[in-house]
Amino acid sequence: MSYKQTRLGILGGGQLGKMLIQAAADLNVLCKVLDPDANAPCKVLTNDFIQGKLTDYQTVYEFGKEVEVLTIEIENVNTEAMEALVKEGVRVFPKPSIVREIQDKRLQKQFFQKNSIPTAEFVLIENREDLAKYKDFLPAVQKLGKEGYDGRGVQKILNENDISKGFDAPSLIEKLIDFEKEISVIVARNENGEVKTFPVVELVFNPVYNLVEYLFAPANISKEVEQEANRIATLIVEKWDFVGLLAVEMFLTKDQQVLVNEVAPRPHNSGHHTIEANYVSQYEQHLRAILNLPLGSTHAIMPAAMVNLLGAAGFSGIAQYENLEKVLALEGAYVHLYGKAVTKPFRKMGHVTLLDQTTEGLHSKVDFVKHHLKVVSDEYS
Amino acid sequence: MSYKQTRLGILGGGQLGKMLIQAAADLNVLCKVLDPDANAPCKVLTNDFIQGKLTDYQTVYEFGKEVEVLTIEIENVNTEAMEALVKEGVRVFPKPSIVREIQDKRLQKQFFQKNSIPTAEFVLIENREDLAKYKDFLPAVQKLGKEGYDGRGVQKILNENDISKGFDAPSLIEKLIDFEKEISVIVARNENGEVKTFPVVELVFNPVYNLVEYLFAPANISKEVEQEANRIATLIVEKWDFVGLLAVEMFLTKDQQVLVNEVAPRPHNSGHHTIEANYVSQYEQHLRAILNLPLGSTHAIMPAAMVNLLGAAGFSGIAQYENLEKVLALEGAYVHLYGKAVTKPFRKMGHVTLLDQTTEGLHSKVDFVKHHLKVVSDEYS
Repeated sequence: MSYKQTRLGILGGGQLGKMLIQAAADLNVLCKVLDPDANAPCKVLTNDFIQGKLTDYQTVYEFGKEVEVLTIEIENVNTEAMEALVKEGVRVFPKPSIVREIQDKRLQKQFFQKNSIPTAEFVLIENREDLAKYKDFLPAVQKLGKEGYDGRGVQKILNENDISKGFDAPSLIEKLIDFEKEISVIVARNENGEVKTFPVVELVFNPVYNLVEYLFAPANISKEVEQEANRIATLIVEKWDFVGLLAVEMFLTKDQQVLVNEVAPRPHNSGHHTIEANYVSQYEQHLRAILNLPLGSTHAIMPAAMVNLLGAAGFSGIAQYENLEKVLALEGAYVHLYGKAVTKPFRKMGHVTLLDQTTEGLHSKVDFVKHHLKVVSDEYS
Repeated sequence: MSYKQTRLGILGGGQLGKMLIQAAADLNVLCKVLDPDANAPCKVLTNDFIQGKLTDYQTVYEFGKEVEVLTIEIENVNTEAMEALVKEGVRVFPKPSIVREIQDKRLQKQFFQKNSIPTAEFVLIENREDLAKYKDFLPAVQKLGKEGYDGRGVQKILNENDISKGFDAPSLIEKLIDFEKEISVIVARNENGEVKTFPVVELVFNPVYNLVEYLFAPANISKEVEQEANRIATLIVEKWDFVGLLAVEMFLTKDQQVLVNEVAPRPHNSGHHTIEANYVSQYEQHLRAILNLPLGSTHAIMPAAMVNLLGAAGFSGIAQYENLEKVLALEGAYVHLYGKAVTKPFRKMGHVTLLDQTTEGLHSKVDFVKHHLKVVSDEYS
């Protein structure tokens, strides 16, 4: 096989796109990026950045016409334009039809149901009024069909009193799962049908903001649970005939059942640590998958943890990083700042990957980072 | 300490600059790049690329006025402009005076001599005629004072018959060293005076083209030689009050003496493997040094080898990479293509880092890469 330069278009210019560009640079892949924010993280890392709406047909279509391969780093994009590009010979991965199904959590859940992929029991509802009809179904979690992202669009409805704060829009309610932990598997598949899963990770969420605070890789789970999580992730990409990278977030229930929570068809927060902790990173793996190259070994080089660096509460303004130098002095600490100019409370500003041979070492490094590194600004409110 | 975004200027836009940008992206460092080649490897990885001559005073001065910190990825730059920028408050590392000394191999050698840094015996000469005066000094290596790079500007003068092919320019001749191997130490020093060396590596040169073909890390040397190499590298940066990254290439003689061959004040071919094989990469280490951040741990994570991917003899034209997919399928193989559009015989087109727990494993991976991966083009001459 003779390998040449590829022109890749990325829909979305956030941190996931930025890390994708870092990986693409090594594979002779030229990246063109579309994002509505003129100061998106990718802006400084490409000479081909276009400012424009990801949900606008014409914008996405014009953007994609100039590239050989088109991919996404965010789901909320115009899939009709992606489909038109496929017809014109652009190689678009993940496939537009799958992106559309994933964009809508209602369709996502129906796909799981149809394909015997274990997931929490659910009911589709159209508006807030519908909620009252399902009192017996509570406690539940209500999820907006569309536009949910990074903890937005998800709401617990524990009892009748909570109904008034429910979303008044097409959504679903699913049984509140009394889970032991949340885990994630990142799986890749290329056009040849080769499939590889990264080792299962264990996620720890901020209970208030519903954002990943940190994770451990590998997860502390039984061999059976690991196999079941891998089986499910593999089943999903095969049922979908999926090409690219898919992150599968799952609940591990107290009785050791694995249930899919939701999926993302792109590099994911739960795979950041793979840059340093695994033979191949999720970013390079995504590129290999969509370029139909052999997938890389997903084996771990060392146990890892990842701490999300969220904007500190109360601070909005030009970002400053306190005690960064203390973290940089730590062996096995890898700082990734996304380069967002402005911090806001709980905004994802960066992450730190931590490597250590022992679990104790990892935990103590996580604590160190959490207690020292802060994203603040001069303005405090 | 409160860490903020930094605007960094890089003189030179080649592969070293490109990998520096990849590392800078994680530290919130915005890179502006100057290079005479409109299609330099850095071009696609920054939104602030300036085409211009690195040796032109005005070009470098204008370029540097806009940044907070200025550094180099190639030595052949205008140091007068760098000095003017220092006076205007730009933080320039490495210091212009040191770059000037290193640009001229005659000054470099005199610096070594003055500071008792072990190096091969040498004589300064002004032209080819001078060579004849030193018949008794032969066999020797003649090195041009200035403009030598990547194997150019170096010529063996074994006996009187070779004198006619000697350089007719200010140069030096040094005793031909009957060495056992060539080794290299990369050392970093920040403004606080913190110094860290990477483990010694062993270089294997192409005997015809005088280019590094591959390397092994760590080098197969005695503890004493290792300590001596580290002592010398540390001595050099301290004598120079050097800030930044310095690659120190050395000969290990058959009687186990360590002699400095030459130095480069920037990331270096002999440190590419550190991206994957060490806790900190040489690129991030350079940034930490010039930003006066704590230096990272240089400990090795795994034994490594690095194979330079040189343009195949006979091929000049748009680059294609044969059997890349075979290398990508290898666990612990990291492909770095520099994105140069055109290949030429022996042009540095990329490198492959190989990780393995065993020496045998590494050697067999090196052989695999050397025998499979080829950079060719449609045009053959």
